[in-house]
Amino acid sequence: MSDDAGAAPPSPKTDASAVLSIDAMGGDLGPEAVIAGLARAVRKNPAIRFLVHGDKPVLDALIAKRRGLSDHCSTRHAEGVVTMDDKPAQVMRRGRDTSMWSAIDAVRSGEATVCVSCGNTGALMAVSMILLRKLPGVNRPAISCLWPSRNKTGFNVMLDVGADIRADSDDLLQYALMGMSYARNGLGLDRPRVGLLNVGTEEHKGRSELRDAHDLIEALADANRFDFVGFVEGGDIPSDRVDVIVTDGFTGNVALKTGEGTARFVRDMLGEAFRAGPLSKVAGLLALGSLKRLGGKIDPRRVNGGVFLGLNGTVVKSHGSADETGVAAAVALAWDLSRTGFSDKLKARLSSVTGQVEAEQ
Amino acid sequence: MSDDAGAAPPSPKTDASAVLSIDAMGGDLGPEAVIAGLARAVRKNPAIRFLVHGDKPVLDALIAKRRGLSDHCSTRHAEGVVTMDDKPAQVMRRGRDTSMWSAIDAVRSGEATVCVSCGNTGALMAVSMILLRKLPGVNRPAISCLWPSRNKTGFNVMLDVGADIRADSDDLLQYALMGMSYARNGLGLDRPRVGLLNVGTEEHKGRSELRDAHDLIEALADANRFDFVGFVEGGDIPSDRVDVIVTDGFTGNVALKTGEGTARFVRDMLGEAFRAGPLSKVAGLLALGSLKRLGGKIDPRRVNGGVFLGLNGTVVKSHGSADETGVAAAVALAWDLSRTGFSDKLKARLSSVTGQVEAEQ
Repeated sequence: MSDDAGAAPPSPKTDASAVLSIDAMGGDLGPEAVIAGLARAVRKNPAIRFLVHGDKPVLDALIAKRRGLSDHCSTRHAEGVVTMDDKPAQVMRRGRDTSMWSAIDAVRSGEATVCVSCGNTGALMAVSMILLRKLPGVNRPAISCLWPSRNKTGFNVMLDVGADIRADSDDLLQYALMGMSYARNGLGLDRPRVGLLNVGTEEHKGRSELRDAHDLIEALADANRFDFVGFVEGGDIPSDRVDVIVTDGFTGNVALKTGEGTARFVRDMLGEAFRAGPLSKVAGLLALGSLKRLGGKIDPRRVNGGVFLGLNGTVVKSHGSADETGVAAAVALAWDLSRTGFSDKLKARLSSVTGQVEAEQ
Repeated sequence: MSDDAGAAPPSPKTDASAVLSIDAMGGDLGPEAVIAGLARAVRKNPAIRFLVHGDKPVLDALIAKRRGLSDHCSTRHAEGVVTMDDKPAQVMRRGRDTSMWSAIDAVRSGEATVCVSCGNTGALMAVSMILLRKLPGVNRPAISCLWPSRNKTGFNVMLDVGADIRADSDDLLQYALMGMSYARNGLGLDRPRVGLLNVGTEEHKGRSELRDAHDLIEALADANRFDFVGFVEGGDIPSDRVDVIVTDGFTGNVALKTGEGTARFVRDMLGEAFRAGPLSKVAGLLALGSLKRLGGKIDPRRVNGGVFLGLNGTVVKSHGSADETGVAAAVALAWDLSRTGFSDKLKARLSSVTGQVEAEQ
């Protein structure tokens, strides 16, 4: 399916849910890491097709180097690249020629249902909002992440982790519904448990918008087949008390980065401990398998992929520094969401609730 | 120095900075854990004297069981105990007979300069504010914590981690000055590096009070001999980029609990990894020393002690669940702060700045 004709889309007969739209530029490690990640993802899921956006000659050469990969890829040329320093407003005005814009536009046009990018988060959200537009009833879209936890699935969902620095009680309610739908489709949970992040679990605690959101979410739980566990605290994020953690984008972003930083810190300290003496080195060698399993479980690269929720189409934001493993993880997540028809299900869920809320009012 | 006469204070000749006022009730593990912690702390610092508040017969009996401890302790009877479920407002109205109230009152009266309690945080802050009152120029007192980091001292200071859920730009400025003074006296840093927690490091990011606080703190850095590193992110908290992390009490509390929860999660996963097979078990045994050193470094019990800043007197809040090790760590911290005359230094620092700000306006 290699595409030599320039901007041609995948064959018109191709099911759009089999195609992922990939922004191959703009990550810290450049298109090499992205193409390596695609090749790795295809080895696991040979049904994936990619529409890859960026510097076409460079991309075609990189794809040609990976045996068989060209059968899975079409490339579409885009002259420009959104850098990590570009301001979202600049990109909104002058970013039409970029690989990011092109990748999201392929979701708008229906050639793909999910887009993956390692680029600048602010610009990616801004362009996604222009091209895909918000779902009816959604005021602020959110970025959700998967968080390693003690749950059987191995993860919790947390949102918003940085789409917006504000959220009122209605936004938090929308986040609860979007996160619940994501947990149901992305983690396969029939009846997700939703919690609202606060500084204490007593109902009288926290800011007023949190107390209001508490009551709003509680009122919709039964009709939407989820359990509301009430307020949860930072210590509950990696726990098995809750599947979906709802918070504003400022708090969520700080929590996410704090958790990642702490895990990295503990891992580095552990590495030092194992280099501390000859006995420790032997122990380190013996423990290698166990430590690798542990590393796999808490390696942020393997849970790479913030999902933008609340738009007409799904965008997966990979870490800017994602390497081959990280890109492959983001692609695998995008593939799951694409194949389960998540975008349509989320839309249906939100419109049914919007209707219900209006009917009740 | 055991005190059989009831409410008598330590000998009037005793230097108040040698006396720590201890609320022995109200922790989850009861007075046994507190008294065990005092005994452990005294073994390290034999100059410490304690004024211990609570159920006197029970405390005297517990103290008598520890050889030599009675030479370091006076006990003062208090009938009531503040429980973890008591609301701060209740305790403010009806808590005069409690060990918590009595322990703080000994700082107010000048019998001690630092108080230690494992009790209910909200009630402890409320009673501290009534009895000790805010320092001139301080609007909101803050709770600061020590956070294990890559710094040479092994720690960063973060505040506020939960005294208040709000903070405007002036509050954040006060936090910066209080945290800087704490880092100077508690961690021995001549010129602490102060950072303001945000969702990005660019100056245009985040809420408006953060951008205002950025400029306010920057303007006072040179005159107060600290370096302002600007905005920092959650991932910087355990880093060596910064010594003092300034944030509002909502965000700080979520970050603290998220970090603790993540460290506990990684540690538990590690334990499981070492129990996974016979080879791993052998490795675990060989690595025991290294893992113990690691555990010591990241064990929240060993960095136990939130310090209330901004009051006339210093209050150290130990974890409610603190065991002997945890209590001893909180007492050691209180001892450092008492012996270095931290309360007076902080007061002088804030009043000099308040004067300066007024002079400039």
